[in-house]
Amino acid sequence: MKGTLFGLGVGPGDPELLTLKAVRLLGRTTVIAYPAPLEGDSMARSIAAAHLPAGAEEIALRLPFDPAKRADDVYDAGAVAIAGHLAAGRDVAVLCEGDPLFYGSFLYLLARLAGRFPVEVVPGVSSMMACAAALGHPLTARDDALVVIPAPRPEEEIERLLAGAEAAAIMKLGRHLPKVWRVLSRLGLAEQAVYIERVGLPNQRIRPLAEAVLDPAPPYFAMILVHRRGKAWN
Amino acid sequence: MKGTLFGLGVGPGDPELLTLKAVRLLGRTTVIAYPAPLEGDSMARSIAAAHLPAGAEEIALRLPFDPAKRADDVYDAGAVAIAGHLAAGRDVAVLCEGDPLFYGSFLYLLARLAGRFPVEVVPGVSSMMACAAALGHPLTARDDALVVIPAPRPEEEIERLLAGAEAAAIMKLGRHLPKVWRVLSRLGLAEQAVYIERVGLPNQRIRPLAEAVLDPAPPYFAMILVHRRGKAWN
Repeated sequence: MKGTLFGLGVGPGDPELLTLKAVRLLGRTTVIAYPAPLEGDSMARSIAAAHLPAGAEEIALRLPFDPAKRADDVYDAGAVAIAGHLAAGRDVAVLCEGDPLFYGSFLYLLARLAGRFPVEVVPGVSSMMACAAALGHPLTARDDALVVIPAPRPEEEIERLLAGAEAAAIMKLGRHLPKVWRVLSRLGLAEQAVYIERVGLPNQRIRPLAEAVLDPAPPYFAMILVHRRGKAWN
Repeated sequence: MKGTLFGLGVGPGDPELLTLKAVRLLGRTTVIAYPAPLEGDSMARSIAAAHLPAGAEEIALRLPFDPAKRADDVYDAGAVAIAGHLAAGRDVAVLCEGDPLFYGSFLYLLARLAGRFPVEVVPGVSSMMACAAALGHPLTARDDALVVIPAPRPEEEIERLLAGAEAAAIMKLGRHLPKVWRVLSRLGLAEQAVYIERVGLPNQRIRPLAEAVLDPAPPYFAMILVHRRGKAWN
């Protein structure tokens, strides 16, 4: 009998935002896999560390930091290693920051393994919801449309996407922050936009967007939330 | 000393999708509040039922089912009852389906109580992520933009919003399903759209969208996910 591939959302950073289901499944899984930087610790593994079973076999997918690099060879090799365990009847839990299907690297493993093995995805708390909670800022109410925009998109596309919805979350800011700031300013939305870095992590920081935009190297794990009604909740 | 108002996301339906943090806070809270229908059980309370402390005082916000009705008087009275406990130094946990700040009725309490009392929001797993997990369907990858569209929006607005992004989640379907179907068909997206009802609840149902659209009374808690690349994950 084949093992099951679990995609486990471990939430955006705070270990207490793991779900009961993720904790239960981790407790009975003997093989775990996770994305990790080329050197150093995996964020997903750190978040779930308290719940990893002793002696679990670990598969680290060592990925280049630059998210524009496809790293197909890393996913190919990881999928081969995972498939070996699944074929031998062992379940494999892939730890995923936030939610597995929302900008997750889990998708690249799924593309390689789905259809060949049973798959179960356990959804997780997304960084978008965690940012809203930390900022005390509503994402959406009533019939608002929300658009989620990765900041690496071209400036004119960000402007078009932002202009069309009542609410927006702009992710993956990093060096794209000044470009996003220009678009928000042109649309008259800079005043009511709020900004947060590394939500839920020990070095989480909330600061005024007008200050953050002057940072010579804004972090990649930073987000802007903006709503046309500002902070009006209804 | 004033009590703290907690907005606790309890996730979309499966009680195992509560977070460790929500469970911990529930265990030490003596006053809970939750939205409920005019008659019958509260969905948010049912999801969290196993973790409610014995003897907790309960405040049910009895809301008309029609989400277009504002129910300001219900929120006003609920906020007064909650404020009484907070002023007396007792914490109050408001149970919220999914995430508190993503189309949540918690926003209406927040509008009435923020500024007067300390507030802490605990994010939850959203129905959007749970639907993607149940369907095995990616929400977003790489630099995809995602738009979240409430189905009660006018047909031409749904078309405009859908046309602009790579991925979409269409919520609150109910009687608006045939209208959404027309738009998806016009945009050539009906084939690759997927549909799910009452995710995570005992009566969850996945069925072909072309079949669901013939239902004389599709449920309100139903969602369509669609991605321009179909089910291609990378």
